[in-house]
Amino acid sequence: MSAEGGTPAFESSTFSAESFFATQPPPPDLEKSVVSVREFVARQIRERRRVVLITSGGTTVPLELNVVRFLDNFSAGTRGATSAEYFLDAGYAVIFMHRQFSLQPYSRHYSHSTNPFLDLLEIHSESSSSGARSSHITVTPSKEADLVEVLSRYKQVHAKGILHTLTFVTVNDYLWLLRSVSHELSRMGRRSMYYLAAAVSDFFLPRQKMSEHKIQSGKGSLHIEMDQVPKVLRSMVSEWSSGGFVVSFKLETDSALIIPKARAALERYGHQVVIGNELHNRKYQVVFVTPSEAGFSETWLRINPETHPITASLHHVKEIEEDIVAELVRRHDDWLGSSTE
Amino acid sequence: MSAEGGTPAFESSTFSAESFFATQPPPPDLEKSVVSVREFVARQIRERRRVVLITSGGTTVPLELNVVRFLDNFSAGTRGATSAEYFLDAGYAVIFMHRQFSLQPYSRHYSHSTNPFLDLLEIHSESSSSGARSSHITVTPSKEADLVEVLSRYKQVHAKGILHTLTFVTVNDYLWLLRSVSHELSRMGRRSMYYLAAAVSDFFLPRQKMSEHKIQSGKGSLHIEMDQVPKVLRSMVSEWSSGGFVVSFKLETDSALIIPKARAALERYGHQVVIGNELHNRKYQVVFVTPSEAGFSETWLRINPETHPITASLHHVKEIEEDIVAELVRRHDDWLGSSTE
Repeated sequence: MSAEGGTPAFESSTFSAESFFATQPPPPDLEKSVVSVREFVARQIRERRRVVLITSGGTTVPLELNVVRFLDNFSAGTRGATSAEYFLDAGYAVIFMHRQFSLQPYSRHYSHSTNPFLDLLEIHSESSSSGARSSHITVTPSKEADLVEVLSRYKQVHAKGILHTLTFVTVNDYLWLLRSVSHELSRMGRRSMYYLAAAVSDFFLPRQKMSEHKIQSGKGSLHIEMDQVPKVLRSMVSEWSSGGFVVSFKLETDSALIIPKARAALERYGHQVVIGNELHNRKYQVVFVTPSEAGFSETWLRINPETHPITASLHHVKEIEEDIVAELVRRHDDWLGSSTE
Repeated sequence: MSAEGGTPAFESSTFSAESFFATQPPPPDLEKSVVSVREFVARQIRERRRVVLITSGGTTVPLELNVVRFLDNFSAGTRGATSAEYFLDAGYAVIFMHRQFSLQPYSRHYSHSTNPFLDLLEIHSESSSSGARSSHITVTPSKEADLVEVLSRYKQVHAKGILHTLTFVTVNDYLWLLRSVSHELSRMGRRSMYYLAAAVSDFFLPRQKMSEHKIQSGKGSLHIEMDQVPKVLRSMVSEWSSGGFVVSFKLETDSALIIPKARAALERYGHQVVIGNELHNRKYQVVFVTPSEAGFSETWLRINPETHPITASLHHVKEIEEDIVAELVRRHDDWLGSSTE
């Protein structure tokens, strides 16, 4: 990378998963995360629950070691955070591996931007007989039923210990964490699911090519050359996960690319499902692409939230993740039933 | 930009503020934002309040028209959101122009990641004599005093109508909005302040050079060439703001660059204050650089939060923004007093 005009002074290179992990440093808190996951998985095995690893949110690619600027992938984390709630409802334990500050299950209903919780609360001030004033907070009555429902589920999930949260920021953090968590989860074999909803960068800047300090402006245009992130799905399927049910996502803006790219991914990596979606209608329509005897099969899921009645449930508006998770649980059941396990 | 190896196929160019606004499209909701600011400023003039425009959070540079990937600048928006509270305490009305989903005044105390509000709440279930169950929510007693204080201030500020929030995402949104809001605020002349704390990209990709669709991987490394964002501070000081008190920020990772770059900015743009800060200690130390008869004057502000006593105030830990805002209010007073207004 250079802030001067002209050609970058280094060669681009191609990373395999092996060369990536051999040359890029692990995040400092990796071992601590691994231990926490090991304990979580062991407990779920004892309690006979299936576990799904959900990845969620975008990854960053820092351009500087003292990072001021970074490349990012668009993702608020809605798909992952919403799906986590439905997997928990379906009896799965969830490892929720998400981008720092992206949406999380339950709190997602109270985004500070769109539904700030301070607007739900009211203050009541009282004076006691001694003249001292005290204040108490209550929830606005019209908002209380919704909040009771979200809060009840949140507290149940925490009391049962079935939601384990991990965070990442960079694509480097993400890859290291994914490998380690998959390794821990492999102890569960085919009863584990991998739901890879994070928007992972295809490109990165190896540590060896990063500027130490903030790139200075004022010297012309900025040139960046990035290397390809290794395609780790192959390693995951063949080595790390030891037989789990693997679901990857394919997000495109050109809808004509979705099916061919989903098929190519299944051929290349040999996993169970690719969920294809297009950026602009991803909340209303997805396609499940799976290997079949005839080659590939495609199943479309579509919702029209406007025609769905408002119910008294937590989810007042129909969310497509409800149908995605129901379909995956059914397929995971069938897949387990057809196995020799 | 190209996803193939080799040299980008276009020429880089240099944008002035004029050529930027002549060639890059305005955000679709600009006119609505301008009208809302016009009404807000008119009301503050009637009510004889000073107004500060605070910009906060990072700007994005989308790499595609259907945006999947973007360049971003590191900023959670802590400086801007925290300073907004102190300006409001000091009697200023605040236009808070911030990156979507970055921290906001008051709700910043309850980040979903570090202090989730769901953890502050408790559910009480009761059965009535008819057997119907009802649930009520209360705040955990040990957390209630803090929340009462934050909530009281939040409600007061909203009741008085002294906080106006605007959002941006891209550097293009930011520049258009900054120009328009400055123009509206110029009606207030020297009683306005501009507190430009946003982390604005120095580079951008003109719309004419953007890919329509998601850049495809699998074809080698990614090359990006970006143009320089025009330095709009000069236009702001000389044309848009009509005499307001302008405070800009200079964030560096190499501390040796702070003072020279702050002086260069004051010489080039002719505004009132540059606040210099270094990435790793920006919460504890800043320097005010200002023009003086002797050339430039430098004033360091430093805090040691660990030695400050915990008080009963909203801000249990000393925040350097308290001192920054107090110093700026004093300087704005002096500057107004020394004017011929």
